[in-house]
Amino acid sequence: MLLLRRCHNLTRFGLLNTQRHQVTPAVVSCAVRLWSSSSEDGGSYQSAHGPSWRHGLAGLLAGTGAVLAYGLHHHKAEQQDSSTVQTIEKTSAFPIISQKEVTTHRSLEHGIWVTFKGGVYDITKFVAMHPGGDKILLAAGGALEPFWALYAVHNQEHVLEMLSEYKVGELSAEDVKKQKAIKTSDPYSTDPERHPALHINNLKPFNAEPPPELLSDSFITPSAIFFKRNHLPVPQVDAASYHLHIEGLPGGVLTLSLEELKTRFPKHTITATLQCAGNRRSEMNKVKQVKGLNWGIAAISNATWGGARLRDVLLAAGYSPDVAQRAFHVQFEGLDKDVTGTTYGASIPLNKAVNEEGDVLLAYEMNGKDIPPDHGYPVRAVVPGTVGARNVKWLGKIIVSAEESSSHWQQNDYKGFSPGTDWDTVDFKSAPAIQELPIQSAITVPTDGAVVDRSSEEVTVKGYAWSGGGREVVRVDVSLDGGKTWQVAQMRSSEKGQAPGPSPPPGRAWAWKLWEVTAPLPAEAQELEIVCKAVDNSYNMQPDTVPPIWNLRGVLSNAWHRVKVKIREDDNEE
Amino acid sequence: MLLLRRCHNLTRFGLLNTQRHQVTPAVVSCAVRLWSSSSEDGGSYQSAHGPSWRHGLAGLLAGTGAVLAYGLHHHKAEQQDSSTVQTIEKTSAFPIISQKEVTTHRSLEHGIWVTFKGGVYDITKFVAMHPGGDKILLAAGGALEPFWALYAVHNQEHVLEMLSEYKVGELSAEDVKKQKAIKTSDPYSTDPERHPALHINNLKPFNAEPPPELLSDSFITPSAIFFKRNHLPVPQVDAASYHLHIEGLPGGVLTLSLEELKTRFPKHTITATLQCAGNRRSEMNKVKQVKGLNWGIAAISNATWGGARLRDVLLAAGYSPDVAQRAFHVQFEGLDKDVTGTTYGASIPLNKAVNEEGDVLLAYEMNGKDIPPDHGYPVRAVVPGTVGARNVKWLGKIIVSAEESSSHWQQNDYKGFSPGTDWDTVDFKSAPAIQELPIQSAITVPTDGAVVDRSSEEVTVKGYAWSGGGREVVRVDVSLDGGKTWQVAQMRSSEKGQAPGPSPPPGRAWAWKLWEVTAPLPAEAQELEIVCKAVDNSYNMQPDTVPPIWNLRGVLSNAWHRVKVKIREDDNEE
Repeated sequence: MLLLRRCHNLTRFGLLNTQRHQVTPAVVSCAVRLWSSSSEDGGSYQSAHGPSWRHGLAGLLAGTGAVLAYGLHHHKAEQQDSSTVQTIEKTSAFPIISQKEVTTHRSLEHGIWVTFKGGVYDITKFVAMHPGGDKILLAAGGALEPFWALYAVHNQEHVLEMLSEYKVGELSAEDVKKQKAIKTSDPYSTDPERHPALHINNLKPFNAEPPPELLSDSFITPSAIFFKRNHLPVPQVDAASYHLHIEGLPGGVLTLSLEELKTRFPKHTITATLQCAGNRRSEMNKVKQVKGLNWGIAAISNATWGGARLRDVLLAAGYSPDVAQRAFHVQFEGLDKDVTGTTYGASIPLNKAVNEEGDVLLAYEMNGKDIPPDHGYPVRAVVPGTVGARNVKWLGKIIVSAEESSSHWQQNDYKGFSPGTDWDTVDFKSAPAIQELPIQSAITVPTDGAVVDRSSEEVTVKGYAWSGGGREVVRVDVSLDGGKTWQVAQMRSSEKGQAPGPSPPPGRAWAWKLWEVTAPLPAEAQELEIVCKAVDNSYNMQPDTVPPIWNLRGVLSNAWHRVKVKIREDDNEE
Repeated sequence: MLLLRRCHNLTRFGLLNTQRHQVTPAVVSCAVRLWSSSSEDGGSYQSAHGPSWRHGLAGLLAGTGAVLAYGLHHHKAEQQDSSTVQTIEKTSAFPIISQKEVTTHRSLEHGIWVTFKGGVYDITKFVAMHPGGDKILLAAGGALEPFWALYAVHNQEHVLEMLSEYKVGELSAEDVKKQKAIKTSDPYSTDPERHPALHINNLKPFNAEPPPELLSDSFITPSAIFFKRNHLPVPQVDAASYHLHIEGLPGGVLTLSLEELKTRFPKHTITATLQCAGNRRSEMNKVKQVKGLNWGIAAISNATWGGARLRDVLLAAGYSPDVAQRAFHVQFEGLDKDVTGTTYGASIPLNKAVNEEGDVLLAYEMNGKDIPPDHGYPVRAVVPGTVGARNVKWLGKIIVSAEESSSHWQQNDYKGFSPGTDWDTVDFKSAPAIQELPIQSAITVPTDGAVVDRSSEEVTVKGYAWSGGGREVVRVDVSLDGGKTWQVAQMRSSEKGQAPGPSPPPGRAWAWKLWEVTAPLPAEAQELEIVCKAVDNSYNMQPDTVPPIWNLRGVLSNAWHRVKVKIREDDNEE
């Protein structure tokens, strides 16, 4: 805490004074936290775009040596792909240290040392500031390489620069040789091929979204372009030997093969939209830098899911209403793991899991076929109306429990905070884990900056709208004048030209609606500010603007969506 | 439809041109619709405050005679209480007409004639424009007085002015004498006494709200100051002979006495906040005139309710899950009636009614005592998380049905529309009946325009926050600078100084939270714009501003609440 406070004060100083100062390595750590956008869930150490972080960093770097080192790095880095930076500067002669010696430094008491590419680093002071939390301790006394292979986002210039500040020695040549003998395989090498249309936000783990204009072409998003949000490498699961374990119920542990899941329980099919909590984060980034992947508006997609009802499986495992007296959560564990064997995990409230109207699935089909590897083959949780992060893929274990999942993603991520809360004041325990998502809509066509010819006389605006918790979207308002006047869009809940299905029962509207408005081009306008806002059947509305909902993690970005379009006056030839 | 369109066009003309024109009575009808805020549910014909409607009306009035009449009325009205206007101008000599003749005009084919205070009026052309709909036909061929006694809001200057335009004759002296012999009793004469602290928005039917600063004094609102929203006179119900009828289930009609309701079913107690859909309507009125009672921020209150679960009663009446295949709604009928015997009515979705977690009560206790007459004695529906209008008081009948209630209040009122929708374009079938309400919060202390002394050094801001659908309020952000910066308020869910009860299960947070922030007065500020916004556990937020959520009925007013406070600099004596 003291260190954090000190960091805060020094940083304020650094921000107020843009000149370079002699400050301690702790300040550099602050810089890592403040000037990089970091998290272990895929957005880790993502660099802040534009020059601002470089300047801030330069102002904060420790000592002349470091400034020089920074300059060298900067120069070098510009000559190569920054995502594959593999070298680290040696700015002075360091003592030779053996692996044996390094291994003795694996506690805060004795110091935390790590090795990287033949260098030895004392990162004791950095531990408290590591964006990924305590996981950094897993590398204590050993090599960073296998961890950075898993979280490839570490392979960036400024991360290496930070590390260089902690250098205390060179690993002995003999030990370097030994390390090299252990081939560090790329855990992402077996990830599946992806559709080339996807906009990739992060390669390892894979995170990508479809182009918006493709998204609104189909009521059911084709699986290949369904947004992909992985937290870890895609696990290789053999369907024949796959087993799902259900624990925490009076019946003891129930273990089901894929075949049993398919044959012992009726297949239930729902059409449900999944949305990442970080969808539209890029709009928050424009207000003020946040941590996380810079998603556009397409971290949302809609599919038909088939599988066993979680409710049915829990009943088979011994669930009865009296269980609800002592257990309040259903935890999911994925089969995707980091190098330490820690799996992805999340939980949902028990009443969502067992309610007949909750429609939670253990899905083995997506859009009528086996779930593809990127989406959880062979079995994933589909928790309709609930944030993507709880729809755990590659499902290995289900635990009925008095407690929420203890995972990083349930406890210290995927939560919303006040715009006034920063990384120095945030208390993750003070906010509930995101479950149901709020009302959302966005414009997919036209895109921001598009040009419309005056001769076309009208403009067609398209988009999607969805709300969490099974709340049906009942209206989408569209404005061409920045929100001064509004018209009501036409909505559809089926593929274009097809008759819509029956209305969902109240509280079970899991699928989005696509909408469209065609309006005449205003006579005088040279530019249109097109805005959309949706309303659900609890009459919740989207907030008008981004700054008041800004939060340090950049989640829950659901302000009115705005795109600007230029009108090109025609030549007078015609 | 044709008439409406014509009305629309003429009105536009009238609005564009402020001079007085020779126009037809249809335009006057338009004026009634456009310049008065009218509805049969208590807000009927409520006058628009301020001078704007008077000017608009003057511009629209038909003919010089009418303009003169208006002038006379205006002058007279200012000399008396406008709510007790009992005279009507006689602008010329009219033929004498007998009651017998009047009685023959009770259809659109033969014209719709009515009498009022000895005058005879042909209101045929007005019928389509009557804000209260077809109910006006109930008076056809007879006297208006008994209807206006019921909907006392008709007793206003401008309503009488409108009526005068339709005058066609004088009722014969003999018939006037006969009418006077029939004493029109005041159906509100048996309404209960009310607490003098209440701000009365309408006397008949009674609609009143507590002062905001009293509201936030108590977590449980004392019944005497709990906001009161009646649609009709309070019925006199004898508890000993009271019976509740439950229909539409396989078991046939179940009839329960109050005693049976209390003894055959376990008593269930919940603390639940009720809010009128029109709460904070006055803020919408400031943007643009809407129809309805001009509620402040206190048409919301919180009480403890005790009663039988509706679920249990429906099960006793033969409900089983297969009923849900054909029935989707539960209709409630009140014992409060208009002169025609039409009762207040509303419905809720069947799944809310039968869900174990829906907590819908047939309540006979409020805050530990018999429900007071204003709140539904002896039995009312309490539908937690749902708009006040569905919490039907003086409950007489419950009908499980494939259809929603056909009542005016379910079909043609209590619905939300786009800000672009006006009374000429509104299609009530296009919007769902309001059930769950959106996230809401407001500042109760200080009040708008309050003055804070600089010497006090800090300001304490208090308020309430609540969300519909059982969604728990998880945060309230408060700003002293109009929304630029925010701090998080302290919330409580119990009386001050008492320990809070256990957290409600997910989706069953029926009670509001009271909140408070004490902050230092900003050094330079001379005025504070205090703003609050709440967030529920689906992370729905309040919209920033009123205009984009404005709707013609003024419901669902839940933008950020703002109050301005002046800082008084102290004398230098101390």
